[in-house]
Amino acid sequence: MSAPHLFRLPKDADLLEALDAICRDKGITHATITVIGALSRASLGFYLQDEHRYVSHEVDKPLEVLAGLGSVSLKEGQPFVHLHLTLSDATGAALGGHAMPGCRIFAAEAAIQTAEGPEKHRVFDEATGLFLWG
Amino acid sequence: MSAPHLFRLPKDADLLEALDAICRDKGITHATITVIGALSRASLGFYLQDEHRYVSHEVDKPLEVLAGLGSVSLKEGQPFVHLHLTLSDATGAALGGHAMPGCRIFAAEAAIQTAEGPEKHRVFDEATGLFLWG
Amino acid sequence: MSAPHLFRLPKDADLLEALDAICRDKGITHATITVIGALSRASLGFYLQDEHRYVSHEVDKPLEVLAGLGSVSLKEGQPFVHLHLTLSDATGAALGGHAMPGCRIFAAEAAIQTAEGPEKHRVFDEATGLFLWG
Repeated sequence: MSAPHLFRLPKDADLLEALDAICRDKGITHATITVIGALSRASLGFYLQDEHRYVSHEVDKPLEVLAGLGSVSLKEGQPFVHLHLTLSDATGAALGGHAMPGCRIFAAEAAIQTAEGPEKHRVFDEATGLFLWG
Repeated sequence: MSAPHLFRLPKDADLLEALDAICRDKGITHATITVIGALSRASLGFYLQDEHRYVSHEVDKPLEVLAGLGSVSLKEGQPFVHLHLTLSDATGAALGGHAMPGCRIFAAEAAIQTAEGPEKHRVFDEATGLFLWG
Repeated sequence: MSAPHLFRLPKDADLLEALDAICRDKGITHATITVIGALSRASLGFYLQDEHRYVSHEVDKPLEVLAGLGSVSLKEGQPFVHLHLTLSDATGAALGGHAMPGCRIFAAEAAIQTAEGPEKHRVFDEATGLFLWG
């Protein structure tokens, strides 16, 4: 699986759950992900760098997925999808953030490509409050 | 062609036509695409999920291409480029949508990478009104 | 190095310098790059297509990196990183541009994949005023 594999994601599924399901099903633990398509709603995180916590924006309307970009690595031994989303609304304005549970797929296509070398493990990083590659 | 190939796209060409031409010329039918650069104008689609039709925004000014992300698959047996664009204007604000005919290249570079496995065929999907991978 | 390699980028480093350092260290001269993460500040270029010069926007606040997309090629014989950034602020609004020196990393992960075929050389292009692939 050295070239990207293309996947159609299921309508009305949660975007992160749909990607997680592919990773579990295919045994993907170390990879890059891209996504385009459309969502019927989104939940977008923004990280408060001083407070070390995410706030989320709920966007309850149809949106184009201009770009979903992310990775699969291991967190506590399990495949973990980290995905950032750029979206647009009916006016063409762009918005986005860290993909949270609650992004509902209208139609989406994903490309997943296995990465080279050893798997990456997420470990807690004191300086940022995030789980980063060790 | 398992790693990405890099292409300079021609000035003043239509973005989708330029990518189509590469696919025809190189026999690419199953691939991922990324693009960065600048456009002198853009035409951006937004899909009305309830009405099952696209509306388009014409943006008649210089724009940076922050991210073009897409795929090549087969529609009615022919290579078909599906591309979503994130753009920025002179203020730095981002906008975007589904790339429509009418995106004129100022300067652009594309990376095209052949995907793994069998080609994807677009077939009409009743639930969304879109041509999705079967 | 035909599949993407994943890299954690160092906190507080300049984004372009961090990517340059990886390319120098690993001998990467012909590649694609993607980045997601967060910046503590950004410097974003917009190219004035008529005047053949960049203007820059300084954005002095925390930002999510929704998508960094770019390439490594050769400019005057040296590896040169060309990167476009889509960012979001605390409201979820997206902004972006051509990555300039002055993008400070809060946390970031990059995927770098060697491209196929001969290296690309940037040469001055009269029509655009840019250094494009010859």
